[in-house]
Amino acid sequence: MATGEHGSIRIGVIGGGQLARMMVPPAIHLGLRISVLAEAEGSSAARAADAVGDYRDPETVYAFAETVDVVTFDHEHVPQPILRELEQRGVAVHPRPDALQYAQDKILMREKLAALGVPIPDWAAVADETELQRFIDAHGGRAVVKTARGGYDGKGVRVISDAVEVRDWFTTLAEDAHGGHLLVEELVDFTRELSQLVARRPSGETRTWPVVETIQRDGVCAEVLAPAPVQDPATLVEAARIGELVAEGTQVTGVLAVEMFETRDGRVLVNELAMRPHNSGHFSIEGSVTSQFEQHLRAVADLPLGDTAMTAPAAVMVNVLGGPAEGPMPVRYAAALAAHPAAKIHSYDKLPRPGRKVGHVTVTGEDLETVRVAAVAAAAAFA
Amino acid sequence: MATGEHGSIRIGVIGGGQLARMMVPPAIHLGLRISVLAEAEGSSAARAADAVGDYRDPETVYAFAETVDVVTFDHEHVPQPILRELEQRGVAVHPRPDALQYAQDKILMREKLAALGVPIPDWAAVADETELQRFIDAHGGRAVVKTARGGYDGKGVRVISDAVEVRDWFTTLAEDAHGGHLLVEELVDFTRELSQLVARRPSGETRTWPVVETIQRDGVCAEVLAPAPVQDPATLVEAARIGELVAEGTQVTGVLAVEMFETRDGRVLVNELAMRPHNSGHFSIEGSVTSQFEQHLRAVADLPLGDTAMTAPAAVMVNVLGGPAEGPMPVRYAAALAAHPAAKIHSYDKLPRPGRKVGHVTVTGEDLETVRVAAVAAAAAFA
Repeated sequence: MATGEHGSIRIGVIGGGQLARMMVPPAIHLGLRISVLAEAEGSSAARAADAVGDYRDPETVYAFAETVDVVTFDHEHVPQPILRELEQRGVAVHPRPDALQYAQDKILMREKLAALGVPIPDWAAVADETELQRFIDAHGGRAVVKTARGGYDGKGVRVISDAVEVRDWFTTLAEDAHGGHLLVEELVDFTRELSQLVARRPSGETRTWPVVETIQRDGVCAEVLAPAPVQDPATLVEAARIGELVAEGTQVTGVLAVEMFETRDGRVLVNELAMRPHNSGHFSIEGSVTSQFEQHLRAVADLPLGDTAMTAPAAVMVNVLGGPAEGPMPVRYAAALAAHPAAKIHSYDKLPRPGRKVGHVTVTGEDLETVRVAAVAAAAAFA
Repeated sequence: MATGEHGSIRIGVIGGGQLARMMVPPAIHLGLRISVLAEAEGSSAARAADAVGDYRDPETVYAFAETVDVVTFDHEHVPQPILRELEQRGVAVHPRPDALQYAQDKILMREKLAALGVPIPDWAAVADETELQRFIDAHGGRAVVKTARGGYDGKGVRVISDAVEVRDWFTTLAEDAHGGHLLVEELVDFTRELSQLVARRPSGETRTWPVVETIQRDGVCAEVLAPAPVQDPATLVEAARIGELVAEGTQVTGVLAVEMFETRDGRVLVNELAMRPHNSGHFSIEGSVTSQFEQHLRAVADLPLGDTAMTAPAAVMVNVLGGPAEGPMPVRYAAALAAHPAAKIHSYDKLPRPGRKVGHVTVTGEDLETVRVAAVAAAAAFA
């Protein structure tokens, strides 16, 4: 691998959101050079942004790639043709486009997981309202419909009982979005959601973190409990097995998050994949010997992976969402720091808008419930 | 306090070494804006450097200060007249020049500590060889001589038995370096060295970390054991008392490191002061809930201070010094990461020169001796 001045490896991140932002601290500690291609001035990772430009513009991306040794991502939105051309030009891209496609297109993801024998909900790719209604009728009169591409944080997801409820999607979906097909899935009767983080480097080494429980509100991750409280130990073993199976099966490089449902009847079904550091892994900044951000950098640089053991028996992460602020932010900020000296605050330096993730708080300690109460209180003080 | 875009506080650091570099990660997490006035392109904190210029040039410093809300330091070398003019112009400077002078001039430091009643070695400020020889003769025929200014890592320190051994210093010392005086101190019969870190914010809140043991080789910090192994509990209490006494007595703002000797007859005597994050506090990045770098930023921004409890029973930091490298650095780096997955590596991105601090390694865990063996081995793999 070619390297920059002093022999440091140069990592280029496409996308300037909080995930790129949180890759900067471990890059500094590891002595890696990190550059960010941000969408706009003032993005969350602006501090590290060396370039501002549109990731959908091929020439912008190619020029950025020439300044680094490996390209990785803050998000999954860079078009496949650009990624494949980068590889043609000899650029190291991680995750590789062959893997990343499964995080870009939910129908491809379902096809792949089915082929790997990974347990997933019943699903179908439907081309029109008739096909969709047939699936709904066969699954108790209600189902989850998702656009194949572009959804996040509950966007691009609807629970419906009549196909007409997504007529707008059939009408407006671009042909390139999986031929205009929608993904439909059975409504899973789950008791909780789990997330399994795995890191894999190009030469094949993988490391898993303890599986975590994620708590969503309005389709957005609200809290993460690490490790997931043990209800049935077999479930945790199964989650780790699935995580490693998906990592190997997709040949992902970097961090993979596998979001799962734990069902009332004791099964674990895969819900979503992300091929980058993920909200469910933010706890690892303080809660793991090696954070998901450090591990992602090690993995995409094909450096040996770090220990993923917990640093404490329990870690709880609570997201901070933007909302109507009472009083000036610096005053609220100081009050929150004063009231919660053991809470680790992460501000994304974003303008607060209602519902927007603007930061998170992590607390670690001996007892999960105590830690959770402290983390929720600290996050509320910042909200 | 005036603030930047999004209400973020803007902190300006003068000096681009590894201390400035390691302030960047907590600034990112806290959502503070950090700028660095570096001495040169390619300095350790170059990633965050917004300006490159000479800190001895008043106009360079004044222009830099106008871009931030508070000025702080990577080193103690900015001349007092520049610091005082900054305050005259209404710039928040922390630590303030009235405090920082005690870290800039060892004779002023000894005078102040004596006035505060802090236990220190016998000392004198001497103007010529006759005065110096008189002190040596009165203290068993050997003594430690230090230049009042500009010393670090064993430089500017000599153990002598005859005043002629520092004739060169008397000849060449600038008149502005404490009127050409040298500091002479008794040789202390110490059993080990301790360091007490304290943070203090302008509004007066202070926090202390557990006192640590520092192990020097050739006048350079080699290892730090946190917390210091308990030999006599009274010693640890005394170290904390002295740390707080010095912090209050000097009205320091930011992080203060008080380096101390533990003597064979059970006393604790102050050796040196530093008014910035210090090598003896690097363990706190992983070993404390709030690292010295985060705490320094909170303190100089006059934000509430964080919890300084240990995150594990033991943390050991080992410095990595540059030396003759065997094999290309990226290859050695990968081998070291592979062999030590639980070691936390900190690279300063400096060109290695023999004896130069180019990084450090920290390991945390349950048992100090086990952790120490692991940290020493990991640092050796990088050296």
